[in-house]
Amino acid sequence: MNTSFDFEIERLIEEIKEREAEKVGLQFPEGLKRHAGKVANKLEKRSKAQIYVSGKPCYGACDLDLDLMKKTDLFIHFGHSPIKNSEKVIYVEAKSNAPVEEVIKKGSDKLDPQKEVCLTSTAQHIHKLEEAKSILKKEDFKIKTIEGDERLDKEAQVLGCNYTSVSESPQVLFLGDGNFHPIGLALDNPDKLLLVADPLKKEVREINPDDFLKKRYAQIEKARNAESWGILVSNKVGQKRETIADNMIEKHEGTFLISLDEITPEKLSSFYADAFVNTACPRISTDDFNRFDRPVLTPIEFEIAIGEKSLEEWEFDTIHGTW
Amino acid sequence: MNTSFDFEIERLIEEIKEREAEKVGLQFPEGLKRHAGKVANKLEKRSKAQIYVSGKPCYGACDLDLDLMKKTDLFIHFGHSPIKNSEKVIYVEAKSNAPVEEVIKKGSDKLDPQKEVCLTSTAQHIHKLEEAKSILKKEDFKIKTIEGDERLDKEAQVLGCNYTSVSESPQVLFLGDGNFHPIGLALDNPDKLLLVADPLKKEVREINPDDFLKKRYAQIEKARNAESWGILVSNKVGQKRETIADNMIEKHEGTFLISLDEITPEKLSSFYADAFVNTACPRISTDDFNRFDRPVLTPIEFEIAIGEKSLEEWEFDTIHGTW
Repeated sequence: MNTSFDFEIERLIEEIKEREAEKVGLQFPEGLKRHAGKVANKLEKRSKAQIYVSGKPCYGACDLDLDLMKKTDLFIHFGHSPIKNSEKVIYVEAKSNAPVEEVIKKGSDKLDPQKEVCLTSTAQHIHKLEEAKSILKKEDFKIKTIEGDERLDKEAQVLGCNYTSVSESPQVLFLGDGNFHPIGLALDNPDKLLLVADPLKKEVREINPDDFLKKRYAQIEKARNAESWGILVSNKVGQKRETIADNMIEKHEGTFLISLDEITPEKLSSFYADAFVNTACPRISTDDFNRFDRPVLTPIEFEIAIGEKSLEEWEFDTIHGTW
Repeated sequence: MNTSFDFEIERLIEEIKEREAEKVGLQFPEGLKRHAGKVANKLEKRSKAQIYVSGKPCYGACDLDLDLMKKTDLFIHFGHSPIKNSEKVIYVEAKSNAPVEEVIKKGSDKLDPQKEVCLTSTAQHIHKLEEAKSILKKEDFKIKTIEGDERLDKEAQVLGCNYTSVSESPQVLFLGDGNFHPIGLALDNPDKLLLVADPLKKEVREINPDDFLKKRYAQIEKARNAESWGILVSNKVGQKRETIADNMIEKHEGTFLISLDEITPEKLSSFYADAFVNTACPRISTDDFNRFDRPVLTPIEFEIAIGEKSLEEWEFDTIHGTW
């Protein structure tokens, strides 16, 4: 079993017994699915409940397996913090135990001590944010953390689709690993200095959104002459933006709605359309665009491509609130 | 627009208006999805209803898009005949206009005139079955067509998962194209002579299940030493065999349930398990096995692999009834 992830088996067995749950659903993000069988067998043996594992791809708490929720009394989601709390769902968050002191100190060397610093993080590292904050304060930095909108479970937390916890400060220190969250943060805040303090790689790096922006512009240009558009609407509970899609269809000729859950190149390949608009997770457009054979634009990019907005009005597409 | 498929636009517009449907869902099988945009635009313009197209893969009437059904007042399924009729669903069946006389006569040359002939077909060609029957009767063949179970919409019709319309006759003439249905028919009836009268290719061919059987045996052998098993349960309305899956989990150590809709190699690849049991569409096991990196057995094959049944007891897995 993965030593860096605590599946909290004891707590879960207690919860299952206490709630007298007979059917329990488990959902793991892709990186943890390999542990599913063992976790299921352990829970089953000790709780006597029937355990079902979700076989659908899962990339966030926006993506609860509603089919499986319907057929179980209790649903356990591993890896992410809640977007919306519910009696029926237990969240077992992934918490990294990587130390942060060294990397936060490295980050502080690159920050301008004269200017306020916004500090943000993800569910995996946010339990170390207070420690990071006090290290920076000792170095006389003025730190600002703010609460984002209700989509975010914790103060200073970001999601790939939501950066409302990023304050007005001109520089941002992001405590976390990978580039997935920082890229979104940079695209949503192109005018700020953004440093990633990565506790896993033990390095500090600057993220510049320019390359990503250029790629978005290129996708928009490719879609300029599109005559037929497939407007993608997701059934995923936290990615369902039906009103945006409905309005597009109503206003624009040559558009048609495609209802689906997981958006994959294979699923779109059967459809005749010159381009697609993605009203689901914006990161499918920004991060996966080169897997698709045609442009998959965000709603704002669609408006630019059809000439309703100018390229200067480009904005990173984000999702707000819960469901 | 495809000249060989009649989307029955006029009938559909009338139905939408008559039912005063405001939101209409369309579902196309993969081969017809490229027409989705045009069909949607036509229906939208003339009926004023909001049209949604299902973006999920669809391989049969067992596979209605329940998410889309929930958000629409009327649901139109193209390509297949109903497995279960419902007020809310209109089926627009694919009917081939290929002539059958020549190919039925060719088929009759290869049949034993001394023995009874079972005549079967698929939704695409079954409207020509009476013609085929009378041609054979003129040649003095004794023909038998029977009604299958309630999963089958028409007498003498077969589905990839259901051959209950195949009579006791020692020889079967299948009127239809492709090898998908004949392979299942042959695996379900290994002792009969099976001839395919293919009106599209204008040829008659014999189908022998031996090669397919050998491949099944090889998959079973590969799974003999498996210690961990993922038991796949589908959410697809006509492929949901929960009781079979639940019983397996209860009886056998080292098994765990995986709940999903589309079963793809990508989805299974994240799971640690030595082998899988597929309680959904049996054709995923028999036809797609070489796309998967581990054995994906049917429930009967699982019993053979763990030694509860012998290889001689192998049977083609079929699905009966509706839902």
